[in-house]
Amino acid sequence: MIELYHWEPNAASARVLIALKEKGLKFESHYLDVLAFEQFAPDLLDLNPFGQVPILVDGEDVYSEASYICEYLDEAYPDPPLLPENPIDRWAARGWQKYVDDYLAAAVSDLAWPVLGLEALRARNSAATLDDAVGRIPVRERRDQWRAAIADPDEDLLDKARERISLAIQKTEADLAERDWLAPGGYSLADIAVYPYTAYLPRIAPDLLGPRTAAWLGRMARRPAVIAAEAMSQTGDPYGVSAPGPEHIRWG
Amino acid sequence: MIELYHWEPNAASARVLIALKEKGLKFESHYLDVLAFEQFAPDLLDLNPFGQVPILVDGEDVYSEASYICEYLDEAYPDPPLLPENPIDRWAARGWQKYVDDYLAAAVSDLAWPVLGLEALRARNSAATLDDAVGRIPVRERRDQWRAAIADPDEDLLDKARERISLAIQKTEADLAERDWLAPGGYSLADIAVYPYTAYLPRIAPDLLGPRTAAWLGRMARRPAVIAAEAMSQTGDPYGVSAPGPEHIRWG
Repeated sequence: MIELYHWEPNAASARVLIALKEKGLKFESHYLDVLAFEQFAPDLLDLNPFGQVPILVDGEDVYSEASYICEYLDEAYPDPPLLPENPIDRWAARGWQKYVDDYLAAAVSDLAWPVLGLEALRARNSAATLDDAVGRIPVRERRDQWRAAIADPDEDLLDKARERISLAIQKTEADLAERDWLAPGGYSLADIAVYPYTAYLPRIAPDLLGPRTAAWLGRMARRPAVIAAEAMSQTGDPYGVSAPGPEHIRWG
Repeated sequence: MIELYHWEPNAASARVLIALKEKGLKFESHYLDVLAFEQFAPDLLDLNPFGQVPILVDGEDVYSEASYICEYLDEAYPDPPLLPENPIDRWAARGWQKYVDDYLAAAVSDLAWPVLGLEALRARNSAATLDDAVGRIPVRERRDQWRAAIADPDEDLLDKARERISLAIQKTEADLAERDWLAPGGYSLADIAVYPYTAYLPRIAPDLLGPRTAAWLGRMARRPAVIAAEAMSQTGDPYGVSAPGPEHIRWG
């Protein structure tokens, strides 16, 4: 049996949810409220010591990191394939996954977080509660990351994020000028990787969105698998990051 | 025909050189002196706009990013395989590649660079020549990275790098307590990914090296493919980073 620990169907959680839905796989969903730090509960850290979702459990085996969960799913459940057949096309699709991991995810997070996540978090918790909760995060890298995340946004960081997103959109526009989907060879994990980040843009940076990328976002949003994944939202608005959950952080 | 643009057989260049040698593939080697910024020549930027080596050209197709070049080689030239058979083992091997890409490579570079690269660069070029050369790098991300690289080392960064390397060695020690190679299922791209970074440690941070990791480094260094890759050094000391090349940067 497959189980998935995930947050709202956005960002990395959406990548795996969409892949599972594309493959028509049944799975048990465990929804974690990331803004209440539920991913740092001891039993979750046993599954992924890095304190990050999504986490996929298939039988006895535990998989983390969205890019490699998706690679695993495509190898273990090859029908329908989500990587192209041709080697150079497979490389291009994987290259998009890596581009998301290395650049796009952080850039979108830098830009989206202050207007979406941080606002929600501050509405729900006092500064002291937040400080205390972040101080108790048992994974140092996550603690440093969250400490930066609850501080006031840095204008220079926001400018750089906009610039990086703009470069990413140059890349999507270039690929989509030649075909309907990002990698050559058809719809693939490349589209699944990029979508849950660019889907924030109509809300946070509509001016950065190119025309072909906007049309492709529409094609993505109409896919049954994407509709099914987004229907798993508990807030009704996965790209609003106004997650449900406790009014105050209570964990640890 | 396969061609490889690479630097000294260390770090990312070594990963691909070792994989090619393990598979017994013939290829044309194009050695680039990274410390003379040869990777930013216009024809190289045509191959990889990110201004990074290694770059593999196979027929008409151009591949960059060591992890995905290695994945490509393993798919296109499956004999001998460099990923385990079992899905969870494949995931573990890929996880090591990602860990190198996301954490270990940067940590080792942060620690090794000041004592090896920066010293060599400063011995060969005046501060003004370096400033000028870095200012002309046509890729903004690389320019920012090199600007930081030619500045005086930051003690806090060095401490953090040591801490991150120490965490990585905890991971290698844990895996090597159970078997001879990092991923379950035998020698794999995991070992090939981790080796060209940990191979710096006997020189730059011997105190951080665990006993099992030291023994594994020895097993790696005795593999014919590793010996063959390291024989391609033009300095005779791939982990010394005292690269050959022009006495003064002259490019662009």
